[in-house]
Amino acid sequence: MSTDDQVSLLSFDNEVFRLYAWYATAVTVKMMLMSIYVSQYRLRRKVVENPEDVRGDKVKAFRRDEDIERGRRCHRNDMENIPPFLIVGLLYVLTGPTVYNATWYFRVFAGSRFFHTVAYLLPLPQPSRALGFFVGWCTIVSMAINVLKTGQM
Amino acid sequence: MSTDDQVSLLSFDNEVFRLYAWYATAVTVKMMLMSIYVSQYRLRRKVVENPEDVRGDKVKAFRRDEDIERGRRCHRNDMENIPPFLIVGLLYVLTGPTVYNATWYFRVFAGSRFFHTVAYLLPLPQPSRALGFFVGWCTIVSMAINVLKTGQM
Amino acid sequence: MSTDDQVSLLSFDNEVFRLYAWYATAVTVKMMLMSIYVSQYRLRRKVVENPEDVRGDKVKAFRRDEDIERGRRCHRNDMENIPPFLIVGLLYVLTGPTVYNATWYFRVFAGSRFFHTVAYLLPLPQPSRALGFFVGWCTIVSMAINVLKTGQM
Repeated sequence: MSTDDQVSLLSFDNEVFRLYAWYATAVTVKMMLMSIYVSQYRLRRKVVENPEDVRGDKVKAFRRDEDIERGRRCHRNDMENIPPFLIVGLLYVLTGPTVYNATWYFRVFAGSRFFHTVAYLLPLPQPSRALGFFVGWCTIVSMAINVLKTGQM
Repeated sequence: MSTDDQVSLLSFDNEVFRLYAWYATAVTVKMMLMSIYVSQYRLRRKVVENPEDVRGDKVKAFRRDEDIERGRRCHRNDMENIPPFLIVGLLYVLTGPTVYNATWYFRVFAGSRFFHTVAYLLPLPQPSRALGFFVGWCTIVSMAINVLKTGQM
Repeated sequence: MSTDDQVSLLSFDNEVFRLYAWYATAVTVKMMLMSIYVSQYRLRRKVVENPEDVRGDKVKAFRRDEDIERGRRCHRNDMENIPPFLIVGLLYVLTGPTVYNATWYFRVFAGSRFFHTVAYLLPLPQPSRALGFFVGWCTIVSMAINVLKTGQM
């Protein structure tokens, strides 16, 4: 592959990059919606973490709310998994994969994370959530192996 | 736009990329300074999380320190918002925006995060911090919509 | 440097990028292994965070397990440091550094994070872990300064 061909890999004219940009943005926005999910519970239930946020009863304001804690755990799980996908996925695009392979990697990852969120928040009985996590995790590691092979020393 | 034009988007010769690189690095360093902010309190007040870190009184070492917890919450909020900006911002650069639009997006995001940190750590009365968070959040989502439109299926 | 030269910076043909891709993927996979490290303790010791995960004794399931908490703290420290490296490192590649400089930056960062993990999990006596953290932190800040200089306004 010539340098010119490789260079154009990071362009919306490259179908693989276009797919990456779309799925990467979709899962990032999904992760950011977790902030809103947790915030609306905090506002409605007046449960806070900071003294300056208290409205109304000061003692009840610092109680533990299970829905808020669940939302925060789901958000943290996203933060553990989505940033790795964003970078490994970008490097994977630069290895020049086929559109077919890339489509499936991105689709499976995004699907697994949306499923993970639903399974976490409803919640669905286990091992639903564990499966959602594990499929996404394996997708990243599989792309990572492709990157390591392409860039091997 | 020809492929060659798009390709050169990720170069310091491209004003939009140069701005992205500058603001992305500035907010990342700001986030990393949160580690130092929390660590200096830990060192000075001898408040630790790990038994191997204890110096002096073992019981007091594991007490809850409100400044440390506040610093950690501020850091976590950065981790929830700054990595999404870093990737969505990079993809936004690749959509080929005008320098004018890009400058405002990056400037508003960086400004909102610096303001959020000040509002969190002083703290300023609410809704200062909420505003800082929300403006930054909307900036990312707005850039994300641009990316999704450019890469639409 | 011509635009064409700069453009080819993000290609596996560019030795500096190849090194970045390799080390960035290696530290990301390392970070992701923290999920497995924590999960295996949760499974073996039946310590959970969510009611739907309980197998066996419901009260013991929610107890605090020091190894799990340690693994989570180590994972959080990775999340505070590795995503900044991933972006700052990528921007640093685009500044066109020498292979010699880039190799040392990436090698020292990766080494410091692997050492940090070992020092955290064993644990090694302090200041081992603090040193691992601090060396990695300085590496990122040093690369960030290079990026800010290259993109200065």
